[in-house]
Amino acid sequence: MEICWLIELTGNTFGRVFRATTFGESHGPALGVVVDGCPSRLALGEEDINAELRKRRPGGSAVGTTRVEEDKAEILSGVFGGKTTGTPISIVIRTTGASSSAYEPIKNVFRPGHADFAYWAKFGFRDWRGGGRASGRETVGRVAAGAVAKKLLARFGVIVLARVVEAAGVKAKPLEVAEKDIGKLGKAVYSSSVRCADAIAGKKMADAIEKARAAGDSTGGIVEIVATGVPPGAGEPVFDKLDGELAKALAGIPAVKGVEFGSGFGAAGLRGSENNDSFYYDAKARKVLTRTNNHGGMLGGISTGMPIVARIAVKPTSSITGRQKTVNEEMDSVDIAVAGRHDPNICPRIAPVAEAMVALVLADAMMLQGMIPRKL
Amino acid sequence: MEICWLIELTGNTFGRVFRATTFGESHGPALGVVVDGCPSRLALGEEDINAELRKRRPGGSAVGTTRVEEDKAEILSGVFGGKTTGTPISIVIRTTGASSSAYEPIKNVFRPGHADFAYWAKFGFRDWRGGGRASGRETVGRVAAGAVAKKLLARFGVIVLARVVEAAGVKAKPLEVAEKDIGKLGKAVYSSSVRCADAIAGKKMADAIEKARAAGDSTGGIVEIVATGVPPGAGEPVFDKLDGELAKALAGIPAVKGVEFGSGFGAAGLRGSENNDSFYYDAKARKVLTRTNNHGGMLGGISTGMPIVARIAVKPTSSITGRQKTVNEEMDSVDIAVAGRHDPNICPRIAPVAEAMVALVLADAMMLQGMIPRKL
Amino acid sequence: MEICWLIELTGNTFGRVFRATTFGESHGPALGVVVDGCPSRLALGEEDINAELRKRRPGGSAVGTTRVEEDKAEILSGVFGGKTTGTPISIVIRTTGASSSAYEPIKNVFRPGHADFAYWAKFGFRDWRGGGRASGRETVGRVAAGAVAKKLLARFGVIVLARVVEAAGVKAKPLEVAEKDIGKLGKAVYSSSVRCADAIAGKKMADAIEKARAAGDSTGGIVEIVATGVPPGAGEPVFDKLDGELAKALAGIPAVKGVEFGSGFGAAGLRGSENNDSFYYDAKARKVLTRTNNHGGMLGGISTGMPIVARIAVKPTSSITGRQKTVNEEMDSVDIAVAGRHDPNICPRIAPVAEAMVALVLADAMMLQGMIPRKL
Amino acid sequence: MEICWLIELTGNTFGRVFRATTFGESHGPALGVVVDGCPSRLALGEEDINAELRKRRPGGSAVGTTRVEEDKAEILSGVFGGKTTGTPISIVIRTTGASSSAYEPIKNVFRPGHADFAYWAKFGFRDWRGGGRASGRETVGRVAAGAVAKKLLARFGVIVLARVVEAAGVKAKPLEVAEKDIGKLGKAVYSSSVRCADAIAGKKMADAIEKARAAGDSTGGIVEIVATGVPPGAGEPVFDKLDGELAKALAGIPAVKGVEFGSGFGAAGLRGSENNDSFYYDAKARKVLTRTNNHGGMLGGISTGMPIVARIAVKPTSSITGRQKTVNEEMDSVDIAVAGRHDPNICPRIAPVAEAMVALVLADAMMLQGMIPRKL
Repeated sequence: MEICWLIELTGNTFGRVFRATTFGESHGPALGVVVDGCPSRLALGEEDINAELRKRRPGGSAVGTTRVEEDKAEILSGVFGGKTTGTPISIVIRTTGASSSAYEPIKNVFRPGHADFAYWAKFGFRDWRGGGRASGRETVGRVAAGAVAKKLLARFGVIVLARVVEAAGVKAKPLEVAEKDIGKLGKAVYSSSVRCADAIAGKKMADAIEKARAAGDSTGGIVEIVATGVPPGAGEPVFDKLDGELAKALAGIPAVKGVEFGSGFGAAGLRGSENNDSFYYDAKARKVLTRTNNHGGMLGGISTGMPIVARIAVKPTSSITGRQKTVNEEMDSVDIAVAGRHDPNICPRIAPVAEAMVALVLADAMMLQGMIPRKL
Repeated sequence: MEICWLIELTGNTFGRVFRATTFGESHGPALGVVVDGCPSRLALGEEDINAELRKRRPGGSAVGTTRVEEDKAEILSGVFGGKTTGTPISIVIRTTGASSSAYEPIKNVFRPGHADFAYWAKFGFRDWRGGGRASGRETVGRVAAGAVAKKLLARFGVIVLARVVEAAGVKAKPLEVAEKDIGKLGKAVYSSSVRCADAIAGKKMADAIEKARAAGDSTGGIVEIVATGVPPGAGEPVFDKLDGELAKALAGIPAVKGVEFGSGFGAAGLRGSENNDSFYYDAKARKVLTRTNNHGGMLGGISTGMPIVARIAVKPTSSITGRQKTVNEEMDSVDIAVAGRHDPNICPRIAPVAEAMVALVLADAMMLQGMIPRKL
Repeated sequence: MEICWLIELTGNTFGRVFRATTFGESHGPALGVVVDGCPSRLALGEEDINAELRKRRPGGSAVGTTRVEEDKAEILSGVFGGKTTGTPISIVIRTTGASSSAYEPIKNVFRPGHADFAYWAKFGFRDWRGGGRASGRETVGRVAAGAVAKKLLARFGVIVLARVVEAAGVKAKPLEVAEKDIGKLGKAVYSSSVRCADAIAGKKMADAIEKARAAGDSTGGIVEIVATGVPPGAGEPVFDKLDGELAKALAGIPAVKGVEFGSGFGAAGLRGSENNDSFYYDAKARKVLTRTNNHGGMLGGISTGMPIVARIAVKPTSSITGRQKTVNEEMDSVDIAVAGRHDPNICPRIAPVAEAMVALVLADAMMLQGMIPRKL
Repeated sequence: MEICWLIELTGNTFGRVFRATTFGESHGPALGVVVDGCPSRLALGEEDINAELRKRRPGGSAVGTTRVEEDKAEILSGVFGGKTTGTPISIVIRTTGASSSAYEPIKNVFRPGHADFAYWAKFGFRDWRGGGRASGRETVGRVAAGAVAKKLLARFGVIVLARVVEAAGVKAKPLEVAEKDIGKLGKAVYSSSVRCADAIAGKKMADAIEKARAAGDSTGGIVEIVATGVPPGAGEPVFDKLDGELAKALAGIPAVKGVEFGSGFGAAGLRGSENNDSFYYDAKARKVLTRTNNHGGMLGGISTGMPIVARIAVKPTSSITGRQKTVNEEMDSVDIAVAGRHDPNICPRIAPVAEAMVALVLADAMMLQGMIPRKL
């Protein structure tokens, strides 16, 4: 069989001026990230990173994997006397407790829904332990970088919050998020085992996820990300629009199959008179606002000052214990049942990653626009 | 009222090695594009560009604007003796018949759904004639660049085809596109006034679009783009995934509010056992294939060799003749009814732009991977 | 004979946020540039461009080619009502009076000192008329872009001036340029046929150039570029230092074989106690300054506020009428004597190109640092 | 006193497809680099890195600092089973034995010739211990990345060698390096305490360096870098020329004040008939070559297949024990005598850094051109 033997060129750096370069494989000695371009004089410590890493950890609930991931960040550079110096911030998270034995028997088999075949086609050589670089574990570096971006954005009044709005076929009550409510919403979200602000729906989600898991299967869902406090004027017209950058950032999260903004796919069925948002001037706030937010906070690829609203479609976890047909590197037809500890529904753990990616996009776009000064 | 006075930084260049830089405003003297990085010795002439520009022109049907756009490309550089030299290909399309009079009365008013306010917030100064740089007319440069990319891709067996699958609330019959059928499908698409391969649905779409137009309103829809012939191994892991690049390229098209791949938002409601695609080895074709294509031709951000499938949600055209509330640059509340000739549904004209953007992404990714050599 | 058949990837865009993409071949229909990222509301007209293009034109003196180059810029986009809009500024210069007949007989011969062989090795196909893309004529696009950068820099008190300090073996009197003297110096430079501020040396240079030309030969020299008014703090540490960016910009000018800053190669023979510049505080100017300027205005890759001083070594023009040995595309050994009208010494015409390149670097670095706001 | 408070944006990443991002401060917990884009299946181990790091270490001779730098690389990612996987290679070098006490008394003083003032102007906050990020110690990350590039290049027959050709006023015998002699030359260079291939001159250099050091002073010199085996066709015309990239890479090394190629600044005094290199065809080698190499292996910014030859001017070390005048952060005039252990002449230690930078440029340019495949 002929195959194109190729290799990646770059692909591991995100951003233009606020930049993150992640590294590391699932079962390698360490994962991490180098954050370059962060303003100087931002108060930053390892606990800032660790707090975000904990949100990404599998919870104690039914919906997470039962693996224990003890993620502790070490900052190797770029911080002096508790403040950023403006030089690259290198963050390393050592791997602990990785067990590669479950992967040994399937090291030359292409798991359905996974990147095994694509990596093999591309690199001709892969670290098969725990999915190597294509593992969801790689996102630990993104969350660490996002922690720095979120700390920076908070200084400028920008808050990013992701929550599960659909999981395992259960939908949360629709909610148009207003800027003033984001704090309260965050508390509800972070106290939910499935990161759903609607407590009743959240309970049903957890049940439906568990039911599928018990049947050896997995489920998907939808995560909504809202960012408040972004001033009008961020984003570059034409090819580097703010929605374009967000679409790339979110579509690049493992398991994401779709991205939409504001009225999204629903806009396809609306009329212009319904979908257009009327502008008005709020004299007290001294701001131009819109009555509705079908545009999701961006027009012409530039922020309008309204909350930025995005939703992502998350596919059901590819690793399932049920038997599936596939092939191996020798082109033999084989059956596979993926053992190991896997998330039956990945939505609650994708939420902090989505927050991190949106925070990286916004920190970058706002610095590029001069909305965030280069020295705090 | 305080506003952030800022300006774009870049934003007008797309691609890494096969690069396009567009320029021009709706009613300026000319629009165009500089294509850099195209391999040498590709046969290329102005007619190659003009053929694609004609697909973008408003048709004679009910669904297009009644403006006449006579788009003729002039190649200023990069081609010698009918072949590319490997140096930048500059393409200019002169503006003819622009009439700015309809825009004069609303030059300081922010049209709902348009980028007027966002550009004003960002640049503090804008060319209000026909929407300036934020006009859909800007896409003429993208289509010209896409024409070069499509010609190059065709040499390597890659075909990109976009078609309307929903418009004005009318859905076309679902269709999983197989590689061998793409040629026939293209003929059906290009002969339809609404670029819909399903002739019966296409007729209903045209009627529904016209009905809304007669009521002073506009409609939206969904466009599906399929690319066949892309070998496995294109795309860069982690941040520059092939789906990430496509999401950015497609979300950056004016009026697009959502992007999805393969099973897309539908994946949210499926189980892993339903959504995973089984691999098998086709001994005759000497290829690894999948039985179904819920993954849309990409896993882990890398192409698998299956057809690449993307869908975009297109909002209803923002310019409607019905009366709307808004504000102007002086923060006065005003009413507006947008005159001028506008597309009542933009889907058929967005299709060739979507084809161009997907072609640009694929030419770039395949060159970056060495799948397209640097000299033909 | 085996040869690597390859093609360029990009290479025609300069800058990060203030960006220029040039296009065009020596004898093609037009050359030009797209300037992206210029702040909005800068007053700009075609005459601003033409004034700089005239400086690049061969003068009436003995030292320039006798070709007539009537360069007239047309602005196609990005300017509205006499001011920049913040969108891409496309500038086109039509070719007039190109005569390719002198190149026809040597179209498959590799001229010594020229890029013919290298382009052939790289692209496998080249526009041989007048050197194609590798012609010095390509710099017309750089000078056009530089004109925009210079106009922008002038608004912020930055002046860039290049002058010939050595030509055909004749050295001008050494001169440490002080910020206050740059205006007067410019007048002397622009009124000299060889762009030398030292009138006596300039006369001798012209004579020596003419003497070599009469002998069928060519000569080289040294050009010094000084930029005053750059505030301290521009430039990015480590890999994108301000001197690094300048070195790349200047080394990329055709015929340049060396670049140095401040004490330059002379520093190799000095002791630390001689080469270090003492800092002092000028209380009246409220500035930290240095007593001497061996550092050439940059330390650690960052501007210090002192004048930036660079010098470039320019090789003798490769086209000479004397007979030389070489090979052709068929690997035959052949003799060549390059006919056509060529500059016997290119230094006076490289000076405005060097000014343009330094202006592009400084506009980019200062915008990146927030020293130039994004809206004027 | 007013100062521009600004911060870097990026600046810590080098390369386009073979990319290196360095991090770390002189006295921070660790320094390191992330290498992205290296082909998969290259044999690589920590000893490959350590061997290059040892070349950078201060030798036991009179000419190096007496500090002991125990540099041991740890590879955290991108290597599996002794081979690269194509994913980012993260390399960390822990700091040992740093002593910040000598810097405490001068932590708010701007050392002449150093980046202290410039960093202060730019960031408003700096890690003053050992020069922080602006320390020569930062180059440890460059050398680690260069080790990977050199190992890759060697597989394709490319060898990079830097040697000292002038130090403390003593010049080595001129030598035009031929491709076949590079191996023998390397042995002579690596066995010299001052990295000079000319043993007699090398002895005189060591004496002259020591004499200046004993007088509390420092000296400079010139380093020449030769790369053999680069095929014709590497480098991108116009703005990203191979000499342009090399100039930027070399000018960005701390203490470098000038860069030249081939005949360099000497070309300014030559005639065209002297400086042009005649082409001929070597039928046995099946290669186009030139009789002389004044062009230094590049024409039109593209490699010709001849050895690439560059020279850099290195200023005398800024840290001297003699008393100098300067100011502090409070704008007071103060005297300073820099204590601590410093290199009296940095040329021998800059040589391996120059090798690393040239290797990074060549690996990047050759991969971009398809000369190095993406999978080994």
